[in-house]
Amino acid sequence: MKVETLFKFLEALKNIVRTGWMLRGIPASIGETVAEHSFEASVLAFYLASKLRDKGVNIDVNKVAVLALLHDLPEAITGDIVRYVKDAIVRARDFEEKVSTEAFGDEIASLIREFNELKTYEAKVARLAEILATHIQGKRYLANGYSRVEDIVNNTLEEIKELIKNEPLSKISDNINEIISKSRETYG
Amino acid sequence: MKVETLFKFLEALKNIVRTGWMLRGIPASIGETVAEHSFEASVLAFYLASKLRDKGVNIDVNKVAVLALLHDLPEAITGDIVRYVKDAIVRARDFEEKVSTEAFGDEIASLIREFNELKTYEAKVARLAEILATHIQGKRYLANGYSRVEDIVNNTLEEIKELIKNEPLSKISDNINEIISKSRETYG
Amino acid sequence: MKVETLFKFLEALKNIVRTGWMLRGIPASIGETVAEHSFEASVLAFYLASKLRDKGVNIDVNKVAVLALLHDLPEAITGDIVRYVKDAIVRARDFEEKVSTEAFGDEIASLIREFNELKTYEAKVARLAEILATHIQGKRYLANGYSRVEDIVNNTLEEIKELIKNEPLSKISDNINEIISKSRETYG
Amino acid sequence: MKVETLFKFLEALKNIVRTGWMLRGIPASIGETVAEHSFEASVLAFYLASKLRDKGVNIDVNKVAVLALLHDLPEAITGDIVRYVKDAIVRARDFEEKVSTEAFGDEIASLIREFNELKTYEAKVARLAEILATHIQGKRYLANGYSRVEDIVNNTLEEIKELIKNEPLSKISDNINEIISKSRETYG
Amino acid sequence: MKVETLFKFLEALKNIVRTGWMLRGIPASIGETVAEHSFEASVLAFYLASKLRDKGVNIDVNKVAVLALLHDLPEAITGDIVRYVKDAIVRARDFEEKVSTEAFGDEIASLIREFNELKTYEAKVARLAEILATHIQGKRYLANGYSRVEDIVNNTLEEIKELIKNEPLSKISDNINEIISKSRETYG
Amino acid sequence: MKVETLFKFLEALKNIVRTGWMLRGIPASIGETVAEHSFEASVLAFYLASKLRDKGVNIDVNKVAVLALLHDLPEAITGDIVRYVKDAIVRARDFEEKVSTEAFGDEIASLIREFNELKTYEAKVARLAEILATHIQGKRYLANGYSRVEDIVNNTLEEIKELIKNEPLSKISDNINEIISKSRETYG
Repeated sequence: MKVETLFKFLEALKNIVRTGWMLRGIPASIGETVAEHSFEASVLAFYLASKLRDKGVNIDVNKVAVLALLHDLPEAITGDIVRYVKDAIVRARDFEEKVSTEAFGDEIASLIREFNELKTYEAKVARLAEILATHIQGKRYLANGYSRVEDIVNNTLEEIKELIKNEPLSKISDNINEIISKSRETYG
Repeated sequence: MKVETLFKFLEALKNIVRTGWMLRGIPASIGETVAEHSFEASVLAFYLASKLRDKGVNIDVNKVAVLALLHDLPEAITGDIVRYVKDAIVRARDFEEKVSTEAFGDEIASLIREFNELKTYEAKVARLAEILATHIQGKRYLANGYSRVEDIVNNTLEEIKELIKNEPLSKISDNINEIISKSRETYG
Repeated sequence: MKVETLFKFLEALKNIVRTGWMLRGIPASIGETVAEHSFEASVLAFYLASKLRDKGVNIDVNKVAVLALLHDLPEAITGDIVRYVKDAIVRARDFEEKVSTEAFGDEIASLIREFNELKTYEAKVARLAEILATHIQGKRYLANGYSRVEDIVNNTLEEIKELIKNEPLSKISDNINEIISKSRETYG
Repeated sequence: MKVETLFKFLEALKNIVRTGWMLRGIPASIGETVAEHSFEASVLAFYLASKLRDKGVNIDVNKVAVLALLHDLPEAITGDIVRYVKDAIVRARDFEEKVSTEAFGDEIASLIREFNELKTYEAKVARLAEILATHIQGKRYLANGYSRVEDIVNNTLEEIKELIKNEPLSKISDNINEIISKSRETYG
Repeated sequence: MKVETLFKFLEALKNIVRTGWMLRGIPASIGETVAEHSFEASVLAFYLASKLRDKGVNIDVNKVAVLALLHDLPEAITGDIVRYVKDAIVRARDFEEKVSTEAFGDEIASLIREFNELKTYEAKVARLAEILATHIQGKRYLANGYSRVEDIVNNTLEEIKELIKNEPLSKISDNINEIISKSRETYG
Repeated sequence: MKVETLFKFLEALKNIVRTGWMLRGIPASIGETVAEHSFEASVLAFYLASKLRDKGVNIDVNKVAVLALLHDLPEAITGDIVRYVKDAIVRARDFEEKVSTEAFGDEIASLIREFNELKTYEAKVARLAEILATHIQGKRYLANGYSRVEDIVNNTLEEIKELIKNEPLSKISDNINEIISKSRETYG
C-alpha cells in the first residue's frame, strides 16, 4: 500500500456516512461515519474478547480489536454498499478480496478475509461486536424519532441471537443480553 | 408503486450525500445530497433544452427536465454506487431495470431506461445537464480546498467535451463552453 | 438570464434552508434546503399528475413537474420569505413578477406566474404537490420531537383539504388521503 | 411579551442562519446563526464603546452592548430579510416597529428603534460593531474559498469607512483600522 | 487585549459546542455553541432584570445583560471544561482570574469575577439567566429524544429553585416558575 | 466497568469534536470527532508497527493498534481538555489514572497508562501514530483555509521529528518522512 493511499483512505472513512442510516432518513450531518462505527465496534470487540478470555477461552484479545478496526477498510474504495447491491455483485467475495489485496496489501487483506469468513474465534467476536455496535446505534436513532431504522434494530437483534447460540459466544450470552437490555433502558 | 414507498424514497434521496464527494474528503454535513444534485441537473436540463429548442431543434423541453429529475431515483434503494462497484455487478443494466420497475412501476422505469440508454435527444440533453451539474459542484468544492475532487472535475469535463461533439448538443456547444468558462471565473 | 446567474442561483437554492423550519427550532444542519423541497415537490407533482391522467384528465404531466421544480426559483434572490413578511410587501405579486422576469427571463417567469395564479390544471396539481411535500416534511420533524412545527402540519392539511374539494383534484382525493394516512403511520 | 414567546424567539434566533451567507453558497451547517452574529456584535460593541469612553467620550458602555444584542430580535418573527426585499416593503420602518412592539413590548421595541435611527452615540457604536462583525465573518468565509461573499466584505468596509468619518466614531478610527488590518492578516 | 486576540476569541466561541451536550450524545452539528448560549443567557438576563426593576429593585439592567454576555469568554482559551475537571484544578478560581486578566484585560476580568462571585444583585440575576438558559435548552434536547441530558435538566432546576429562594430573585419567583412551566408545555 | 457505562462512553466519543479544532475556527459540523481521530490513529499505528516489525523490531503490532484505539477513552468523562488547562490540574497524571481506573477498570486503565508513560516500544509507536494523525488532519483543515490551525501543524511536526530521532522509531524515519511529504503534496 502506498502511504498516500493510506491517509486518503482514512480520510474517506472519516467522511463516509453509513448508507443504511441515510436511506432511512437520518440527516447526513448527524449520521454515523464509517470511522466512528469501526471505532465503536473495535472497542466493543476488545471488551467482549476480554470477557471471553476471563471465562477461560483461548482468544487473542488485541487481534479481535484489530479485526473490528479494519473490517470496513474496503469501503474507502467501494463506498458503503447495501446488502441488496452486494447480492447483485458476481462473486462478491472474490471482488472484495481483490479490492483489499490491491489496495491494502496481503496482511490487511488477510485480516479482512478472516473477519468475513467468520471461522476463527477472533472473527466471531469481532463480528458480534460489529453487529452489536450497529444495533445500539440504531436504538439511539429510534430514540430520536427516526422510526424507519426499526428493521435494522430488529435484524441485528436476530443476528446477535443466532451468533450467541454457539461456542465460544454462548459463554458470554449473559453479558450480551445485559448490554441489549441496558441499551433498551437508556435509549427507550 | 405504493404511496408510502414514494415518500420513503424521497426522504432517502433528500438525506443521501453523494458517495463520490465523501470518498474525497467532503464532510457529509456540507455534502451535496442526491436530491440537491437532481434539482440542479433538472433545472440545467430545462435551460439547455430551451436553448436547443430556440435553435430550431425539435425537443420536448419539459421531458428533458423530468428525465434529469428522475434519473437517480433508484439510489433510494441501492444507495449511491460508485462506478468501480457498478462495473462489478453482473448485468448492471438488467439489475437497475429490475430495481426501477419493481419499485417505481413501468412509467418511471421506462423514463430511467431512456435516460440511461442515451439515444433520444431528450436523454442526451438530460445526461449533459447531469454531468455539467457534477462538474460545477466539483469546482465549488475545489474552491474550498478539497483538492481531491480534481479527478471528478477533469473527468466530467472530458465527458462533456465528448458529448457536445455530436448532434444535437453541438448546436449549443458555445453555451456549454461559456458556462464552463464562467464557472471557472466564479469558483476559481 | 446570464449563465453565471444560473449556477449562482442554483448554488443559492442548494444552500438556503427553509425559514419556516428554522424559525420553529429545526437546526439548520438538518434543515431541508429549498432545492430538496423543490425536488420532492416536483417528483410528487409528476406522480399525482400521472394519477390524474390515468383517470382520464387532460393534463400535461411533465409540465406539472416543471412548474413544481421552478416555483421557488425567486428565492435565490429574495431568500425564503415568510408569509407574514410577504403580506407587508406592496403589490407582492408585481414584485415577484419583476424579480422573476429580470432574473430568469420571460419563459421561466411565465411558468412561475402560472404556478402562482393557480388557474390551470397543471398549476393546481403542482401547488397541491408542493403543499403535500411541506406537510410530509413537517410530519418528519414532528416525529423527531420538533413539536413547534405543528401549526405548519395543520395548516398544510387544511389547505390540502380545500384544494381537493374541486376539479380536477377531487378525482384523486382518495390517493391524497391515502398518502396523508400512510405518512401518519410512518412518521407517527 | 409572553414568556413562552421569549424562549421560542430565542430558539428561533439560535437556529436561523443568516440569509446573506446561504445565498452566496455557504452551507447552512457551517453558517453563522443570528444568535452567533448578535453575540459577536455585542461583545465588539462593548469593546469599542470602552475604547471611546477611555478617550473621554460620554457613552453608556453597557447600553451599547445591549443595543447590539437586541438589534436582530425581530428576525425571530420575520426571518432574516435581505435588503432587496426590505426595500420592497411599504413603510418598512413602520412595519418593523409594529412587529417589535407587539412581540417584545415597548421597552425592547424602543431600544431596537434607537438602534435603527442611528442618532445616539450608543446606536452609532452598536451599528459600527454590527457591520464590523459581518465584515470579519465575511473574511473568514473568503478564507475558506467562498469567494461569492466578496461583495459583502467590500460593502461593509465601505460602510465602516463612512461611519468612522464622523464624531464620535472618528475618535477610534485607529482602533477600527487596526482591527480591519489584523483581520486581513489573520484570514488572508 | 490585542485586537486580533479579540476576534480570534469570538471566532472560537462561535464554533465551540458545549461539552456537556456532546458528552450526552448530542451530535456536534446540532449542538449549541457557547456563543449561542451566551446570547440566550444575555437576553434572558435583560428580561429578568427588567422584571426585577419593575418590582422596585434597584438594579442595573444593562449591566446584568453584559455580565451574562461575557461570562463564558474564558472558554475561548480553555475550551468548555466540565465541572468534574474544574474540581481537579488547583485553585480553579485563581486560574480563571489569571486567564481572564491576561487575555481580556482588567475591565472584562473584573466583570467575569463579579459574575463568578455571585454577590451583587446583577451577578445573581445573570447567573439565574444562565442556568435557566441551560435548563430550557436541555428540555429542547429531551424533546428530541436525547434522554441522557436529563441530569442537566434536573440539576439546573434544583439550582434555580435554590437561587429564587433569596432576595432579590424571590421577587420574580412567579415569573421564573411560569417560564419553567411554559417551557415544559412547549417542549413536552 | 458497567456495560451501560461502556456504550454511553462510546456515544460520547462519537459526538465530541476535538476542542483544538473548534478553538481555531473549525465549525463543529465539519470537526473531527474523538472517535474518528482514535480510528485514524489506530489504523496508522497498526501500519507503522507492521513496518517496524518488518525491519526486525520485536513489537506486538496488534497491541500498538489497541493502545492508539483506547488512548482517548478518558475524554468520555473529562471532555477534550486543552494542554493549557491540563497543566493547571494538580497531579494531572494521578487524576487521569483515577478517572481511568474508576471508569474502565484495571485492564484498560493500565493500557492507557502504558500509552501515557511512553516507555514501551508499543507506546512509542502508538504515540507517534496519534501525533501523525493530528498532523495530517491539521493539514486537511489548512487546505480548506482554516489558517489558524497552523500552530498545531507545526507543533506536531516538531514532536514527530523528536520522536523519530530515537530507537525504535528511527528505523522507520524514512516512512514517516515520506508520509509527511506526501500529505504535503496531497493537501497543499
